[in-house]
Amino acid sequence: MYPTSLENLIECFRRLPGVGEKTAERYALLISEESEEDVRQFADALIQVKAKLTHCSVCGNLSEESECEICKDTSRNHRQIFVVASPRDVIAMERTNEYHGVYHVLNGLISSSKGIMPEHLNIDSLVKRAAQADEIILATNATIDGETTSMYLDRLLKQKYPNILITRIAHGLPSGGMLDYADEMTLTHALTDRRKMGQ
Amino acid sequence: MYPTSLENLIECFRRLPGVGEKTAERYALLISEESEEDVRQFADALIQVKAKLTHCSVCGNLSEESECEICKDTSRNHRQIFVVASPRDVIAMERTNEYHGVYHVLNGLISSSKGIMPEHLNIDSLVKRAAQADEIILATNATIDGETTSMYLDRLLKQKYPNILITRIAHGLPSGGMLDYADEMTLTHALTDRRKMGQ
Repeated sequence: MYPTSLENLIECFRRLPGVGEKTAERYALLISEESEEDVRQFADALIQVKAKLTHCSVCGNLSEESECEICKDTSRNHRQIFVVASPRDVIAMERTNEYHGVYHVLNGLISSSKGIMPEHLNIDSLVKRAAQADEIILATNATIDGETTSMYLDRLLKQKYPNILITRIAHGLPSGGMLDYADEMTLTHALTDRRKMGQ
Repeated sequence: MYPTSLENLIECFRRLPGVGEKTAERYALLISEESEEDVRQFADALIQVKAKLTHCSVCGNLSEESECEICKDTSRNHRQIFVVASPRDVIAMERTNEYHGVYHVLNGLISSSKGIMPEHLNIDSLVKRAAQADEIILATNATIDGETTSMYLDRLLKQKYPNILITRIAHGLPSGGMLDYADEMTLTHALTDRRKMGQ
């Protein structure tokens, strides 16, 4: 119903995660009202992302160079590896300012429903890096796919390095969480992983 | 914290309506995973929208030609003009398949808070078109800005054409609406504009 050029742009916006028809329409109409320069800048930003972005050859995180800023940082502890599913998880963790080791980005999670198998993920290089590590912290999501992936990695790494220290991030009541709003799984984790007061 | 090219794209996405930092990140990361061809197509769609889209010289709706499809359609009633704020409203109304007149798109609403005055809107050409019209249907949103704009247009048009028929779309309980969830304004409208049963 819209002019063709607008329909084409609406279709492009609809490919973005969680964007339905109404939202894509709103986005495209806003673009039609932006200045030509702003739109050109947007188009250029899209092209540049594909042209410049690559994955860090060490950890798999997004980077414009063959090695990312974190992997190049010699002040960090390179013997502690925090394993996550996506580059967004790295940013989330970095925002805490509490972690000073390095990361390994799997770029996905094992998922039988989506047909994602271990060989599709950035796992081989993790196994190689693990030889020089003191600790591997498994920090995949607390979802079925996240748990499956962590269990798989735990088994794989222990098979290869029987003495390696592998940890899993804690699960329990989130900060500010209300007991009566928490789901059964969260409460079960919170109970199972309880700690002695004062420790 | 992200590589520069990704940060630039995130900034572009944040300009879209209702898009916060997290959403913009998700969009940009999806783009980084798309094929180069898909991204090029997206960039091209952006450029094309600015290059090809213009406003219909008659009604102000978005169009790739100087006159839009609806204004060119001789089977429609050109003496009945449905006045709306934006091209999205035209699409919404067209989806009903119940309206066979033409439209007039103001491209905005009078808004003291946003500093939008009548002279910023596509009103002059409406006043000119109204000379040949049998009915002007004011169909701006049921918001303060929408009501202000409708009242302004009603006064302006009646001043110029004392005998013109000006109507306002009905306000009341929406289809499927529950009385106990409706706000006071909606219920007041529903009461005031009640109609005799069977009419």
